[in-house]
Amino acid sequence: MTTNELAQPETATALQPEMPATRWGDPAHASGLPDGVRDLVSLVFPVRDTPAVIDVALPVSRITDGQLAALRELLGVEHVVTDDGSRRVRTRGKSTPDLLRQRSGDLTDAPDVVVRPGSHDDVAALLAWAGTERVAVVPFGGGTAVTGGLVADPASAGLTGVVSLDLGRMRRLLALDPVSSTATLEPGLRGPEAEALLAQHGLMLGHFPQSFEFATIGGFAATRSSGQSSAGYGRFDAMVVALRVATPAGDVRLGASPANASGPDLRELFLGSEGAFGVITEVTVRVRPLPEVKDYEGWRWASFADGADAMRQLAQADLLPTVLRLSDENETAINLADPEGIGGEGNAGCLMIVGYEGTPAAVAAKKAAVTGALTALGGTALGAEPGQSWASGRFNAPYLRDSLLDNGVLVETLETVTFWSNRENLYTRVKAALEAALPGAMVLCHVSHVYATGCSLYFTVAAPGGEDPLAAWLPAKAAACEAIVAAGASITHHHAVGTDHKPYLTAEIGEVGARVLHAVKDAVDPVGILNPGVLIP
Amino acid sequence: MTTNELAQPETATALQPEMPATRWGDPAHASGLPDGVRDLVSLVFPVRDTPAVIDVALPVSRITDGQLAALRELLGVEHVVTDDGSRRVRTRGKSTPDLLRQRSGDLTDAPDVVVRPGSHDDVAALLAWAGTERVAVVPFGGGTAVTGGLVADPASAGLTGVVSLDLGRMRRLLALDPVSSTATLEPGLRGPEAEALLAQHGLMLGHFPQSFEFATIGGFAATRSSGQSSAGYGRFDAMVVALRVATPAGDVRLGASPANASGPDLRELFLGSEGAFGVITEVTVRVRPLPEVKDYEGWRWASFADGADAMRQLAQADLLPTVLRLSDENETAINLADPEGIGGEGNAGCLMIVGYEGTPAAVAAKKAAVTGALTALGGTALGAEPGQSWASGRFNAPYLRDSLLDNGVLVETLETVTFWSNRENLYTRVKAALEAALPGAMVLCHVSHVYATGCSLYFTVAAPGGEDPLAAWLPAKAAACEAIVAAGASITHHHAVGTDHKPYLTAEIGEVGARVLHAVKDAVDPVGILNPGVLIP
Repeated sequence: MTTNELAQPETATALQPEMPATRWGDPAHASGLPDGVRDLVSLVFPVRDTPAVIDVALPVSRITDGQLAALRELLGVEHVVTDDGSRRVRTRGKSTPDLLRQRSGDLTDAPDVVVRPGSHDDVAALLAWAGTERVAVVPFGGGTAVTGGLVADPASAGLTGVVSLDLGRMRRLLALDPVSSTATLEPGLRGPEAEALLAQHGLMLGHFPQSFEFATIGGFAATRSSGQSSAGYGRFDAMVVALRVATPAGDVRLGASPANASGPDLRELFLGSEGAFGVITEVTVRVRPLPEVKDYEGWRWASFADGADAMRQLAQADLLPTVLRLSDENETAINLADPEGIGGEGNAGCLMIVGYEGTPAAVAAKKAAVTGALTALGGTALGAEPGQSWASGRFNAPYLRDSLLDNGVLVETLETVTFWSNRENLYTRVKAALEAALPGAMVLCHVSHVYATGCSLYFTVAAPGGEDPLAAWLPAKAAACEAIVAAGASITHHHAVGTDHKPYLTAEIGEVGARVLHAVKDAVDPVGILNPGVLIP
Repeated sequence: MTTNELAQPETATALQPEMPATRWGDPAHASGLPDGVRDLVSLVFPVRDTPAVIDVALPVSRITDGQLAALRELLGVEHVVTDDGSRRVRTRGKSTPDLLRQRSGDLTDAPDVVVRPGSHDDVAALLAWAGTERVAVVPFGGGTAVTGGLVADPASAGLTGVVSLDLGRMRRLLALDPVSSTATLEPGLRGPEAEALLAQHGLMLGHFPQSFEFATIGGFAATRSSGQSSAGYGRFDAMVVALRVATPAGDVRLGASPANASGPDLRELFLGSEGAFGVITEVTVRVRPLPEVKDYEGWRWASFADGADAMRQLAQADLLPTVLRLSDENETAINLADPEGIGGEGNAGCLMIVGYEGTPAAVAAKKAAVTGALTALGGTALGAEPGQSWASGRFNAPYLRDSLLDNGVLVETLETVTFWSNRENLYTRVKAALEAALPGAMVLCHVSHVYATGCSLYFTVAAPGGEDPLAAWLPAKAAACEAIVAAGASITHHHAVGTDHKPYLTAEIGEVGARVLHAVKDAVDPVGILNPGVLIP
């Protein structure tokens, strides 16, 4: 089935609404901290109004009039913009440091121009132009990056100026192969847009990261995203069967088959390449029938270790449900609005969310098997309410972060992944590093992605923001990263490397690994225009 | 659990028995063609005794006395050998062209010296020596390569001489992590040796390719092998969680976690690198409990298309058994010893083998679900006999090939993989290409590896050998490869690239992909000593 036969939504070529520069998401969906929550928070942290500074002028664009004229000739006048608002919302991503810098009026990383190519060929033409002009190109999807992946350093590559390559016009479902269960999507499609296009055919992708509502297909691929249903549907990189990438060295099409022995799997070089090796212009993914049933429920475990061990046993028995997540004691207490329970003994234990999706028969069979296993392992079933509660609020955390920042509370997350036998060690080290670096901090953790051989650990930190929350956070983040490296874990499970994790990458992939990344970079991007300073050590 | 605590079999450091140069496997297990089979074959093909020429002198070794002395100093006198027998059995691999060349007395590709390093450090020292001396190094595991992966061309890299780096002394289980379900294995372990070491701990790997009895862990990783239980346990590359590789540029350790977002997955560059990027010295794999139950059975389908569609539906419903394979009408007729049925209509249909392994409860649950699905799709259950018959003969085909070659019958296999929607097209094209190129050939096919989005196709060709079977086969192989490329499929599902498939690789990965392979090669092996002429287009 090709694009002519595929109904495209009316919005497919319209530009998407943009997120505010200093906040997450759709302002219409944002809400201040409810009074009850503010009262609760104020029991733990000093609360005070901390508004953003917003009337700050942007740096003067380094793009020359001649370059602007050339870009307009290349892409069309309306697709080349330099207004302050467009540049402002494409300055950095949505990590807490990114937001804090924006909120303090620091716009030093603003791109010089925003361009909106409409096709692979447009992207290829832009890359050729940028190579000749020696201007950096930063691919921009949903703008939800949280590790500095949108903060290019043109000077590091001897370049002048930054083009933000906004993929928002490339939002088509290009092809659907219902027999093979694959769909070819353009990179600018946001999560809900991609799902809506597929749902017209009774299909879905099933990738629901926290950033789902705003992040894009291209970004998912470029950063090896992982979603809340990864237990059932897999990481995004595992969903990808084929890629098309525009590189300065030429067009790349990879994925002639589901799997093969045709040498190294080069798809795996472009997955996770964070815009440094090329601009992903087409992503072919495995799709699935829309689930007829969604059944989420809660389970209680006496301890984080007990719950994690149950997850391990499910994964190793190839008995994973669709959603499987486990909060530690602190996160469980917060979920129960019981801050007094944090750090205490004899608390309410640990909450696990277990979700099943699929046909009624498949859900019934899986649920029976999983329920039997979890019961045998000592879990206590809590019924549907905790599951429904989790599902209804699953994309809300970044809005809450804004509200807390507004109230002077520093909030940030970080994540890592290791083998099961190292989980406890990693958890203890990272938690201790954060608590030591941020006196008075509340450190929460959950496991939300599991494998037969290991699991992710996702930490949420809340602390008094003080006069300079950025200055408070950066050493804590460094301490956490050093603890991760010392524990022999990966520096990131699904947030990617960007610039924030780059100092720790060589410890993970070694000197030869770093040399390989440089060699590939030189081969596909000899001038070094693509996202300079990002990813490559 | 580390190596000190792990019981090692007494054979772990002894050298393994070698396969004969001109034949497959253990001579004690080989048997001539039984009279009944010979009579059956003679109904279709002219049968005549075709013995191998074996008393041929090897080319004079190009290794100098000074180099030999240096190698002995480096690795120990007993681990550097140049006798004719040792060189002869490490000349090429076990494809039919390889065997035909050996049988005709062509030993032009013989290595000049065979070395047997005992450790990663030995391998690293050897690579350093070879770089200085400008001598090619060909890693040698089980010697079961079937696509010319052991046929290095030193002149292509400006080198003189070939060292066969035999990994047969590196056969330890280095570490076991029962909590994470991982084991770290040395590359020279043959399939049964690795399984025996794991079985002492109640564990298994579950990788059973046709070459299982002789091929090695390092070879499985270097060629992206896939085994007969891939439906349940996955391809070998999917079992690998970590790798250690000795490269001329230095030591590489990859796999800090089960999965991550730490940039490109560099494991996937060394998996499938066929000795061209480094020598794999440690492989950490996911292991599983030994299955308590093994239950294999047969199903009948009216046609190959019907059976393949049933496989597709199982895969897309995430309902795969452990073993799932389907013979086309011709292969089914041969299995039934009914050559008259080949090519006919109204034949016995197509045989599917469905195997379940695991705990009694898991097998019962999976079998009930799969049986329900296959019955609903129109399959006919044939009970356990066909499954047992397949299981008992699963590693015998290469012995049969030798017997057929002895009788003047040309036999070879080739394989490919594509998406489900292209399966029929690929099947038809490759079959037609083989039949056109080899008049009188019998072309059989099976599907033995399935994915949600596609499947492999494995062809077996038998034809009259004539005066020069190699000259008859090579154009047929080329025609089949061209048909695969024209159908947009992968040039190999699990046999790898070697030298035989190299001319077709660029069509699959593109010019930029080929450039990336060269860039990685130059980064990790600047002198180009590793398997020159293999893999890289």
